[in-house]
Amino acid sequence: MTEAALSLPPQPAALQARPQPVVDMAELAPFASPRRIVAAESSGDTVRVAWDDGTSLRLHPLWLRSECACPACRDRVTLERTFDQFRLPPDLALQQVEVTAAGALRLVWSADGHVSLFDPGWLYLNARGQGPGSTGRGMPRLWLAADLAGAIPTFEHGAVMTEARALHEWLCALRDVGLTLLTGVPAQPREVERIARRISLPRDSNFGAVFDVMTMANANSNAYTAIELPPHVDLPTREYQPGFQFFHCLDNQASGGESTYVDGFAVAEHLRAEEPDVFRLLSEIPLGFRFYDQVSDYVWHAPALVLDERDELREIRFIPWLMTPLLAAPERFEPLYRALRRFAELTRDARFQIRLKLTAGTMSAFDNRRILHGRAAFAPNSGRRHFQGCYIEREEVESRIRVLEREL
Amino acid sequence: MTEAALSLPPQPAALQARPQPVVDMAELAPFASPRRIVAAESSGDTVRVAWDDGTSLRLHPLWLRSECACPACRDRVTLERTFDQFRLPPDLALQQVEVTAAGALRLVWSADGHVSLFDPGWLYLNARGQGPGSTGRGMPRLWLAADLAGAIPTFEHGAVMTEARALHEWLCALRDVGLTLLTGVPAQPREVERIARRISLPRDSNFGAVFDVMTMANANSNAYTAIELPPHVDLPTREYQPGFQFFHCLDNQASGGESTYVDGFAVAEHLRAEEPDVFRLLSEIPLGFRFYDQVSDYVWHAPALVLDERDELREIRFIPWLMTPLLAAPERFEPLYRALRRFAELTRDARFQIRLKLTAGTMSAFDNRRILHGRAAFAPNSGRRHFQGCYIEREEVESRIRVLEREL
Repeated sequence: MTEAALSLPPQPAALQARPQPVVDMAELAPFASPRRIVAAESSGDTVRVAWDDGTSLRLHPLWLRSECACPACRDRVTLERTFDQFRLPPDLALQQVEVTAAGALRLVWSADGHVSLFDPGWLYLNARGQGPGSTGRGMPRLWLAADLAGAIPTFEHGAVMTEARALHEWLCALRDVGLTLLTGVPAQPREVERIARRISLPRDSNFGAVFDVMTMANANSNAYTAIELPPHVDLPTREYQPGFQFFHCLDNQASGGESTYVDGFAVAEHLRAEEPDVFRLLSEIPLGFRFYDQVSDYVWHAPALVLDERDELREIRFIPWLMTPLLAAPERFEPLYRALRRFAELTRDARFQIRLKLTAGTMSAFDNRRILHGRAAFAPNSGRRHFQGCYIEREEVESRIRVLEREL
Repeated sequence: MTEAALSLPPQPAALQARPQPVVDMAELAPFASPRRIVAAESSGDTVRVAWDDGTSLRLHPLWLRSECACPACRDRVTLERTFDQFRLPPDLALQQVEVTAAGALRLVWSADGHVSLFDPGWLYLNARGQGPGSTGRGMPRLWLAADLAGAIPTFEHGAVMTEARALHEWLCALRDVGLTLLTGVPAQPREVERIARRISLPRDSNFGAVFDVMTMANANSNAYTAIELPPHVDLPTREYQPGFQFFHCLDNQASGGESTYVDGFAVAEHLRAEEPDVFRLLSEIPLGFRFYDQVSDYVWHAPALVLDERDELREIRFIPWLMTPLLAAPERFEPLYRALRRFAELTRDARFQIRLKLTAGTMSAFDNRRILHGRAAFAPNSGRRHFQGCYIEREEVESRIRVLEREL
């Protein structure tokens, strides 16, 4: 053991006070609650369990057998279930139901006399659908330009790269606000990938895991020219549109080329409230998106506003220059074109659009399924302009947040 | 120019006979049809265009202006639109409409006198929603075990790696049948990745772009043990479940360890027809899927049978050992558990399940969003068993098929 290890600071109070599980359920997260089981009884297809806070729940015996986490049922190395819960004997029954002195639930099963022990805190959460696998996806906090004027959540690169708490704060802001800045990023190539790998794997694509955004000969994308890019999302041509984009400024001497950001969900909710016919067309009629070059040809169809099964916004799909022809018949074209035109107009509206010129050493990070981004045209011969971009999926960010929260 | 280049065989007849475009529309695909335009006239918000086969279509003028593919409107290097079609002047009008001697459509626009030329074949397809961006996703050909008994579509590795036509045939079978074999694959590490890169990028994950499936210490997945794996799909814990899996046998001397494959769509359609209550529960109630280890914690919720907006099957999500607790209340648990149990039972039914022992040098390739795969338990000390796996997305396969079809 080294000096450094010996001089570790004491655990923070929050961690010391955290309730510890009574039974090992093969979980890595601190799921435990301080609750204890005080009574349990079985009758027919129901086990009734009561906790010391007065909570009482009815559980199906096969549910309990399926969730047995003893070392024979859940491997202590892989942490995975090692039996098939859908091949349990159909006539399986409980022989014995009891509460242990520590407040855990102990069950003995017919046929093989298998014993299942349930941690009271684990059962308290999981039987109510609040176990670790149920943790939320964050709540988007929608914004207008005025809300973030001079107040884009900004984090310091050095802290994010070395401190768990700083990384956690940045990722939660990125998840919920959808737009953040990192400052003090070394203006060096591939720094953007190092930041992505601090979280997890980057999302690779035909443009490369790290892509250089600068004017280039033989460009296969408007991004690699000097023209204006109206607000858009990247890669709506793919079934799975990249979750977040990191966009690192290495140099920005050219005149023009300001970056623009718009909360697409805020625009969409504005339309839902104020112009419901436009919202309906944009959320119902699929558009075609296509990218093709010498070696690839990607096509995807989806509405501009993609809703989930509860009609909540799932993502935005919008990129004027990669859209395939709309419906051509005048009576079908006209209303859809008008709706898209209106959406495009709002993405340029100063109520919604933030405009700023990024400087070397700053990285913007944004939700590519919610925030539209763009840039003003720039004069390519007026100075160097060089950005590097990288994508990382939403689920990689959420996974990292969950792992960080095991310790924080 | 080398001798080899000089001795190229003549173009196949099919390619020679292919109609060539009259107007360059910045397309790489042979979209052209032999149709020619014979008449065109404009009135109000409608341009009426007639072709030499009697087809007549009404098009909106703004649709035509949006799709102008002249070199000023569509960059000949990026092949992308360079103006914002949603910022055209609202009062834009046609000054002139005419048919050229070659049968193309020529338009002159108000305001700036911009000229648009439309290839007759391009317009014939695109105005009816049949342009290159509309190409289909293939039609799944569902199968029972008896359909593929001794008849799994099998391709030769050498041909696939060197011949465009062989690659195209393999990929179309993979897309439509969902299960194929490659034979003659060198039994060497990372061969599976070379095959994926013949198509496009592999899909990376926390298990690596190439993952070794063999028993190992400190396994973080049941796959890396010797236990039975009932039929399942990989990574339903992710929002975007990998499209295809390549599974390459380098060695299979251990006793046991047969591979199993089931067409999950065939099972689901059987349930839809014969046991609609089971189908409904499996397609409506979301399940939780979770993978966690020391460094990651992925969670996703989706029904076992995921349907698209037309109630067609989009994908299967099923992996008994990574499912989070179901609903615990007996009256909610029981019907869902029964439905899942029934689905699991059918995936083991000899009507649906193919079982075979792969040998060194064979690679199976299957649709991981449709085909469930599994393996029998094996005796880890009875001989070496080593597979390497790799994922590639559906859209990468579809892109490669489209690019190959430009030439074939």
